[in-house]
Amino acid sequence: MKETRARTRIAFFLSTLACLLALTASGQTPDPLPSWNDGPAKQAILQFVKTTTDSSGPHFVPPEERIATFDQDGTLWVEQPMYTQVVYCFDRVPVVVKAKPDLANVEPFKTVLSGNREAIAKLPMDDLFKILALTLTGMSVEDFQQEVKQWLNTARDPRWKRPYTDLTYLPMIELLNYLRANSYKAYIVTGGGQDFVRVYADEVYGIPPEQVVGTAGATTYGYDKSGQPFLTKDPKVLLNDNNAGKPEGIHLMIGRRPYAAFGNSTGDRQMLEYTKAGDGERLAMLVLHDDAKREYAYGPAQGLPDTKVGTFTQELYDEAKSKNWTVISMKNDWKQIFAWEK
Amino acid sequence: MKETRARTRIAFFLSTLACLLALTASGQTPDPLPSWNDGPAKQAILQFVKTTTDSSGPHFVPPEERIATFDQDGTLWVEQPMYTQVVYCFDRVPVVVKAKPDLANVEPFKTVLSGNREAIAKLPMDDLFKILALTLTGMSVEDFQQEVKQWLNTARDPRWKRPYTDLTYLPMIELLNYLRANSYKAYIVTGGGQDFVRVYADEVYGIPPEQVVGTAGATTYGYDKSGQPFLTKDPKVLLNDNNAGKPEGIHLMIGRRPYAAFGNSTGDRQMLEYTKAGDGERLAMLVLHDDAKREYAYGPAQGLPDTKVGTFTQELYDEAKSKNWTVISMKNDWKQIFAWEK
Repeated sequence: MKETRARTRIAFFLSTLACLLALTASGQTPDPLPSWNDGPAKQAILQFVKTTTDSSGPHFVPPEERIATFDQDGTLWVEQPMYTQVVYCFDRVPVVVKAKPDLANVEPFKTVLSGNREAIAKLPMDDLFKILALTLTGMSVEDFQQEVKQWLNTARDPRWKRPYTDLTYLPMIELLNYLRANSYKAYIVTGGGQDFVRVYADEVYGIPPEQVVGTAGATTYGYDKSGQPFLTKDPKVLLNDNNAGKPEGIHLMIGRRPYAAFGNSTGDRQMLEYTKAGDGERLAMLVLHDDAKREYAYGPAQGLPDTKVGTFTQELYDEAKSKNWTVISMKNDWKQIFAWEK
Repeated sequence: MKETRARTRIAFFLSTLACLLALTASGQTPDPLPSWNDGPAKQAILQFVKTTTDSSGPHFVPPEERIATFDQDGTLWVEQPMYTQVVYCFDRVPVVVKAKPDLANVEPFKTVLSGNREAIAKLPMDDLFKILALTLTGMSVEDFQQEVKQWLNTARDPRWKRPYTDLTYLPMIELLNYLRANSYKAYIVTGGGQDFVRVYADEVYGIPPEQVVGTAGATTYGYDKSGQPFLTKDPKVLLNDNNAGKPEGIHLMIGRRPYAAFGNSTGDRQMLEYTKAGDGERLAMLVLHDDAKREYAYGPAQGLPDTKVGTFTQELYDEAKSKNWTVISMKNDWKQIFAWEK
């Protein structure tokens, strides 16, 4: 083991040396955010990192306190026309009903199975919760992980015909990497299901399960027939990680106030307020979906309809402007949206 | 900044080199657990680390999956004659009543203020909860942190007349450091209050707030008169991190099954079961308080009274023996209990 560690350290030293030589040769640091156009958003990020990592400056933040929180849907990846997890739940209904055929004639599952889109779109909130409960709870945490993994391998989004995990925003991936290269610890803080996002967050964003905060259900500890313990997912919400639930969830799961927070809707408002209310230099940014051609354009702040998915109100826009949060225009600030575009 | 990072890297390389040279000079690795006597407990730890970090072996665990969870009271520090947090709550009653004098004549606070130990010891559980609610909730999370910090600075334990934070077990601190040196991420998983333990865990154990899982209350997001947001601690329990609540809390907060778990009472049983039920090599250990001279001896597993503080039943002892968990005898396995002893 000693030998392996020594080799690892020598390899680390050599790669560092190579990197330093490359920098000297080119005469400058490579742009850490190449998919961002020069503008106020990119400048705000570079300035924030410079200020908080300058150990001789007044706003230096010790590495262990460098926490950055990211909303997921609409901030790190596409949320239109429907949250990915909701698509998952609808897709799962036929699979679950196959195992429990009695449910085929029970509402709202009957309507979902009918495939009648108009009727499905009209299902009231209570019925949606029944669908979530059926497809997200009642199984062991390991079985759930397998079910989500399998679905992600085969499901395709309706517009680009690609796996949902391809729909992450390249500029935000660059931002995640840039912050991490500067010792920021990146957390997802999502209104989506904590267990759902954990299945792919490490592979897709490099964010491990313990750095995913989301809407979380209770689990119950029990034993199988052979006496092996396991956890069952319960239809009981412990944390609704939306709106005020975001700072509350951050306190519960992290216990520190973030220095930087990123969102795209009114559900992120309190997280950004809480972040900016800390002392020293803090960064709060909102992604504005204003690019109908390359992605989507929606929300009242642009005089567009409220799609009820990632609502960005005029009030939120005004608060952002008055409190010195930075609004990121997808259209103007991002050179490229997806990694696979050319 | 570039220059600072280069300097940091050169410093890291030089310290690595110095370390390697020192090892070559001495011809052997220094004992990572000098306060442990040679015996089955020490051997179990060394063997576990060797097996799970040997990248050529069948039970290698990738560094990012190396999770170790530690109960706190009775496992990392002294829990007798009363849990430190309970002492805190009793000590806080007069301070809170000073600010809210009406409470002086309300039970159970009147009894606590009387100082009548016999009457205090007889207070029923409901009254204890009232004392916890009064002293642990109703304030902002920052005010609470300050209150605990101040108390820790002045409070002294009754037996050794030292700050409570001095009562950590040196062998367990060595174990924490040894596991971390082998890329294990150490979490506290305590029945105690998550926010209470977070105040000192970083300073005392090197465990940051985001790696403390404990009994957790809800908070409520709100605004002060000047419009600044803050979180208030509520008298509502979100997670009772005892017994089955330990694996449930581990899933909620970490989302991975530990490879090693350490406890000392029946409250840790399910955490150890859950840990050992994972595949590959897993380590489960229980501290047995059998050293009346240097610390305390208690619990039914030794034919001693159940003090209701850190109960170690015969049933737990039998389960440990039948499932290949390792029982640590404080008397026989530990050369030294506290760092300040000589």
